[in-house]
Amino acid sequence: MMQLYTGNKNYSSWSMRAWLILKHFDLPFQDHFVAFDDFSADGQFKQQLSKLSPAGKVPVLLHDQLAVWDTLAIAEYLAEQFPEKHLWPQDRLQRARARTVAAEMHSGFMQLRSLCPMNIEADLSAVGQQLWQQHAGLRQDVQRVEQIWSEAEGFLFGDFSIADAFYAPVVMRLMSYRLPVTELSQQYMQKIQHLPAVRQWMDAAKREHLFVQADEPYRTSS
Amino acid sequence: MMQLYTGNKNYSSWSMRAWLILKHFDLPFQDHFVAFDDFSADGQFKQQLSKLSPAGKVPVLLHDQLAVWDTLAIAEYLAEQFPEKHLWPQDRLQRARARTVAAEMHSGFMQLRSLCPMNIEADLSAVGQQLWQQHAGLRQDVQRVEQIWSEAEGFLFGDFSIADAFYAPVVMRLMSYRLPVTELSQQYMQKIQHLPAVRQWMDAAKREHLFVQADEPYRTSS
Ligand SMILES: N[C@@H](CCC(=O)N[C@@H](CS)C(=O)NCC(=O)O)C(=O)O
Ligand SMILES: N[C@@H](CCC(=O)N[C@@H](CS)C(=O)NCC(=O)O)C(=O)O
Repeated sequence: MMQLYTGNKNYSSWSMRAWLILKHFDLPFQDHFVAFDDFSADGQFKQQLSKLSPAGKVPVLLHDQLAVWDTLAIAEYLAEQFPEKHLWPQDRLQRARARTVAAEMHSGFMQLRSLCPMNIEADLSAVGQQLWQQHAGLRQDVQRVEQIWSEAEGFLFGDFSIADAFYAPVVMRLMSYRLPVTELSQQYMQKIQHLPAVRQWMDAAKREHLFVQADEPYRTSS
Repeated sequence: MMQLYTGNKNYSSWSMRAWLILKHFDLPFQDHFVAFDDFSADGQFKQQLSKLSPAGKVPVLLHDQLAVWDTLAIAEYLAEQFPEKHLWPQDRLQRARARTVAAEMHSGFMQLRSLCPMNIEADLSAVGQQLWQQHAGLRQDVQRVEQIWSEAEGFLFGDFSIADAFYAPVVMRLMSYRLPVTELSQQYMQKIQHLPAVRQWMDAAKREHLFVQADEPYRTSS
């Protein structure tokens, strides 16, 4: 069976992507928790990861004596291993488009990702309002996300695919920081939130209560 | 025929990756040049790109009424279109590993990428020496790159693959900034530099002489 190592469900946006793909498509896996700390070299997180991956980050997928330690590579690996599950859209052109927006997320949206770290459990609407006013780059990132979502056909490319898994953490961020988005975007966000796998992840995140200082740049009391 | 839009050969590390794949594997394409400027919304770069891609970045591949505007998605698209060319390793496990290090580059190495922007034509060894001393994050990024290269079997996974194309711009950076690397890394760097497609890109970059202020944080005279 496949083994997936993930971080805190409240914070770990990369872990969420990989976990959602495995869960939504009902692939056989065991989930292992590696608790976040400050990621110092001698902390327990890096120590534990050092046995699994030379990159020292989560998620890591172990399968068949193979370790895959990058979310997009995990997604491609699973798509190849389980062709009957259609993790990418079946249509050739739609598949190319889905890969494009997933890879665009993988390498971009730096302002959104750094200013608004995922924090599912928190209400950061006051912080969000400030950030929104102060950072043109944040507004641009959100605008580009909304442009991508505006072409959604239900999910981004019809049925839920890897592309949606890559944007699910953005939905979490937009909710916690309550950034202003269009009606159309809200519809897509609702659709993501109502997906059983997403609900399950969010519920677990809210029950977690493992607050990590390094991941809480904004919370003043807990 | 496929149409590839790329930026300045001296600076555009993402363009280089896509171009190398097309060139090395002898895929039929026409190359179009979109000159870098300061990337302001009303500048010619963004104006020209707006007709090609909603993300407004290079490279962009046009094929069959499809636009693919992310390097990794371009790579996957080409791998799918030309299976007989073996753009990824043929072995299943090797292919998963190759995808992992390519995706790791796609989403990481932020210190190396931001502190040492690609500048093939320049000798930035003095700058490189300073940066090396001042930035632990840069040293860590290079260390991780060297770890990946240390497992190279000739090229990273035997024959040249997409994974090598993703690390070719790193070779350019390490050369321009003359960062200290092991003998083993230097062997890999030599191998990359001697690849005909890489030589061709480098020669064109050196002949280009289109200096863009925004891409020259370090050059004091030209
Ligand atoms: N390219 C990696 C990035 C993974 C990543 O950055 N994970 C974070 C947690 S969400 C991490 O493990 N950080 C530890 C560190 O940066 O030291 C992927 O796609 O999986
Ligand atoms: N995710 C994109 C990133 C491409 C990218 O950032 N390209 C740079 C040039 S190397 C660019 O066009 N920058 C314009 C801008 O940032 O506005 C890819 O992989 O192709």
